[in-house]
Amino acid sequence: MPKPLYIVLEGVDSCGKTTQSMRLAEALGAQLTREPGGTRIGQELRSILLDPSNSEITPLTELLLMNADRVQNLSEEVVPSLKSGISVVSDRSFVSTLAYQGIVRGLEFDLALQVCEIAMGEVRPDIVILLDIDIEQVRARRGTGQHNSTDRFEQEQDEFREKLILAYREIAQRLTNIRFVVVDARNNPEDVHASILAAVSELQKEHQDDQ
Amino acid sequence: MPKPLYIVLEGVDSCGKTTQSMRLAEALGAQLTREPGGTRIGQELRSILLDPSNSEITPLTELLLMNADRVQNLSEEVVPSLKSGISVVSDRSFVSTLAYQGIVRGLEFDLALQVCEIAMGEVRPDIVILLDIDIEQVRARRGTGQHNSTDRFEQEQDEFREKLILAYREIAQRLTNIRFVVVDARNNPEDVHASILAAVSELQKEHQDDQ
Repeated sequence: MPKPLYIVLEGVDSCGKTTQSMRLAEALGAQLTREPGGTRIGQELRSILLDPSNSEITPLTELLLMNADRVQNLSEEVVPSLKSGISVVSDRSFVSTLAYQGIVRGLEFDLALQVCEIAMGEVRPDIVILLDIDIEQVRARRGTGQHNSTDRFEQEQDEFREKLILAYREIAQRLTNIRFVVVDARNNPEDVHASILAAVSELQKEHQDDQ
Repeated sequence: MPKPLYIVLEGVDSCGKTTQSMRLAEALGAQLTREPGGTRIGQELRSILLDPSNSEITPLTELLLMNADRVQNLSEEVVPSLKSGISVVSDRSFVSTLAYQGIVRGLEFDLALQVCEIAMGEVRPDIVILLDIDIEQVRARRGTGQHNSTDRFEQEQDEFREKLILAYREIAQRLTNIRFVVVDARNNPEDVHASILAAVSELQKEHQDDQ
């Protein structure tokens, strides 16, 4: 039996992560999960985090809640699945927490990493696939072209997304103990899916060679 | 203007903490808060934590959620109040997290302390008043005398409370950088209130002498 893999798809909103996660899980016969909100408790936390009326939530609270969600997802979904020999595809992981709370929201990166490591214990993704995209493509996909960018709110959102895109690239460089594969997500979904499958196949082949 | 104080009351359920916190806050003209549930976000987290149907919550998730509540309580209630010159009385604090999650629920004490310290940043209570009580008194107050202790659930609860009582005493010894005052909470409420007031007055007097 091949070693089950814990595969994570990462990237900014509109990069195609959710669609690609579903396709990959289907292709591999893997269990699909997501952070936040992969468990019942996680869904309750997700709705607190995403509720726009909860504007008083501090970045440090977000960091702790994202990691509470993570603990439940790892202990209820990821670890039991891997133990029973089934691979897991996760739509987001601690990498998103590092990008959002650790870099863009202005907490210290090392502090964010420390809390993520506490939440993860011994568990790490076998591979993180970063669906890399640029801000022009994000705008095009969201239907907000250059001509709208004078709208203050949309401009702020754009700046936020651009910081996130850079943050993900930075993390891929920085976390040298995690296997990152950067996939060009500007391509059409078929090509992106094929690139993801190729990256996973290469990892599986290496594991076979190790045996 | 006297230095505003961050005063915490701690102890096992039924020790009289909530009543004494209210009386103390009234006597001092202090703001009253509690952990968990001192803020709007905190109340949402408290209801997740206390919901008996959420039995899958792990001790590590509890630790993170308690500290998310703590961050909001410190940033919305405690710090603003102290900054405006008003003392704060808090019904529970990180000491309860150390007792419950760090000792009785079996996480590592140092791990629990590490997460609490991340949540607290530079903020520490000026004084922690531990309302110390013994298990016989808890039983008497809860109306569950020795004759009921063969009931398996109540017996488990008793064992849990007894461990907590010991855990609070251990923490009072262990956290040498925090001013702990242990008050005998077996006495009648008037005497307990007087002892608490005396402990606070002594601290206020020391602060005056320092000036």
